[in-house]
Amino acid sequence: MPQHSIMGQTNSSDLFLRACRRQPVERTPVWFMRQAGRYLKEYRELRARYSMLELCQTPELAAQITLQPIEKLTVDAAIIFADLLLPAQAMGLKLRFAEGEGPVLSDPVRTADAVRRLRQVSDGELSYVAEAIRIVCRELNGKVPLIGFCGAPFTVASYMVEGRGSRNFAQTKHLMYQHPELWRELMQKLVKVLSEFLRSQVAAGANAVQIFDSWVGCLSPADYRIYVLPYSRELIANATATEVPVIHFGTGTATLLELMRQAGGSVIGVDWRIELADAWQRVGQDVAVQGNLDPAVLLGPRQKIRECVEHILCSVNEQAGHIFNLGHGILPETPVENVQWVVELVREFSSKRPATKRHGI
Amino acid sequence: MPQHSIMGQTNSSDLFLRACRRQPVERTPVWFMRQAGRYLKEYRELRARYSMLELCQTPELAAQITLQPIEKLTVDAAIIFADLLLPAQAMGLKLRFAEGEGPVLSDPVRTADAVRRLRQVSDGELSYVAEAIRIVCRELNGKVPLIGFCGAPFTVASYMVEGRGSRNFAQTKHLMYQHPELWRELMQKLVKVLSEFLRSQVAAGANAVQIFDSWVGCLSPADYRIYVLPYSRELIANATATEVPVIHFGTGTATLLELMRQAGGSVIGVDWRIELADAWQRVGQDVAVQGNLDPAVLLGPRQKIRECVEHILCSVNEQAGHIFNLGHGILPETPVENVQWVVELVREFSSKRPATKRHGI
Repeated sequence: MPQHSIMGQTNSSDLFLRACRRQPVERTPVWFMRQAGRYLKEYRELRARYSMLELCQTPELAAQITLQPIEKLTVDAAIIFADLLLPAQAMGLKLRFAEGEGPVLSDPVRTADAVRRLRQVSDGELSYVAEAIRIVCRELNGKVPLIGFCGAPFTVASYMVEGRGSRNFAQTKHLMYQHPELWRELMQKLVKVLSEFLRSQVAAGANAVQIFDSWVGCLSPADYRIYVLPYSRELIANATATEVPVIHFGTGTATLLELMRQAGGSVIGVDWRIELADAWQRVGQDVAVQGNLDPAVLLGPRQKIRECVEHILCSVNEQAGHIFNLGHGILPETPVENVQWVVELVREFSSKRPATKRHGI
Repeated sequence: MPQHSIMGQTNSSDLFLRACRRQPVERTPVWFMRQAGRYLKEYRELRARYSMLELCQTPELAAQITLQPIEKLTVDAAIIFADLLLPAQAMGLKLRFAEGEGPVLSDPVRTADAVRRLRQVSDGELSYVAEAIRIVCRELNGKVPLIGFCGAPFTVASYMVEGRGSRNFAQTKHLMYQHPELWRELMQKLVKVLSEFLRSQVAAGANAVQIFDSWVGCLSPADYRIYVLPYSRELIANATATEVPVIHFGTGTATLLELMRQAGGSVIGVDWRIELADAWQRVGQDVAVQGNLDPAVLLGPRQKIRECVEHILCSVNEQAGHIFNLGHGILPETPVENVQWVVELVREFSSKRPATKRHGI
């Protein structure tokens, strides 16, 4: 892999961070959402011995899982192993992981009392995540950056209101529309908890943070503007104050991108439902973008994978500020070799290009 | 309600059909997807006594359900009561309706053998739908038009491959990518069956047909072009040959609209995730549009409902060729009064406008 000296940077360990800041890079950095997960044998072995909560809440185990894909895939960033709903548990809700269904909160938040009962999170209650981050940073020793994360206020709130995954988010929207003042209270509580959670992750050593608004694509643009934007903006402003890059990610957001941009983030993460070049056009060339291969493409043959990877890289060819990723997490049934192959393809293909230019230069 | 005489048309019974053809209308027509469904007490009473399949396959019952909302809501079109997967059953798959989960096909189609076993549907096998249409037409006696429908090839195929609802359509995409020739065979079989199904509905008296590509929003635009467009185009061409208006509907289609337009349809149906005016811009002013209120808004207070209805009507103000509808089906928990109120709002608000002009005049 060629290493160009550009603007005095010869080290590829900060490739990802440079791309986040739209600085020149010698090739496109690549990592994967849910790169530590069920598609990895090593992960399944640990998961067979421990519950999901034990894995998340034992710093040594969470650190070990975080590091599993780093050697195996040679990706350009690590992301701390955790779950979007850990803050919900810390705020007083009962969290369990149902077989094949994902996280379930057994007492959905649907009344004023339920919102009021949600606790502010005291110091140390989520500290196992910060502790895992400290271990990972020690182990990585600067090899690749580490990304911290949390759910966006809307996605966490909708999980709290629905109690589990939902197709139409009827309960969430019912609360939003019928009790806007309660919705505001819930979102404000979440902004406070999530801001502090991200701050603690950065203090522990996270080099960037990603905010997952995985479910926000169920909303109309008008509703996003009223019920989501102010709270995402506040959370992202708080995260940005820590001075690490903030990745603002969602799925099904083709018509929300301009508003997500308004809410903030130095990088906007997009899914495969929109052409990456179109997405970049919509959010503006003064932010970086992350994405956007359909995770299901990794279930296809090599020729299909190659075509899709090259299509993405070509479509944003000469612009610094692209981080290659999937449009959502790696699917459990994905063959590891295919994930490794995407890393190879991205490295090979993007190294062949002339050194990327900073946009506007 | 004022009745203007425009181009010699004084009858509002064909308001919906005129809007489909972008002819002048004295007010915006309105109907609702799943207007005959669980939110109606009369429907729940019948559903308690009969299975879903009995309701669909007994023409007198299907006709009765189809007519339930017509008086109650005073909508401008009826839609035949049926299920997207009836053709899948007729092709040889076992169909059942699981409590709270929707339809389930117990033997998912995932192999060459399974695709080959799918039968062509012989005359009469789906004739209970045509028979229900004949009864409804007799009862309606021209009062409002009747819409026939079927699932689009992709949505029916993905149901066949997954066996049930899916979050990520991994099995479907796996088949599509790994066995494109098998996918083609499956889609071609479906086009044949669905074309004949729509033809029989029109022959029985349906005045328009809607093609539901409810799940197509899981695809990237590039994949839609390869794996869906040719088959939807063929089905829609066959339907268009019957000379009734064809409504081409999908959800999550903000980035697919131009391609859906290429596939065809005299009306493009869109969901709430995109501003209706933007959607119309994308599909072109030479087709009609249908939509696009978020069904969940009907769970909100009257003020919210009014704002959203007026926003939609205002945004496409002076153009003929808008049919008011939701962006997807009415949710079971929806209060009937709110659905009635939307009808009133649409009638009241759109009657106040000057008679809509044919675009370009």
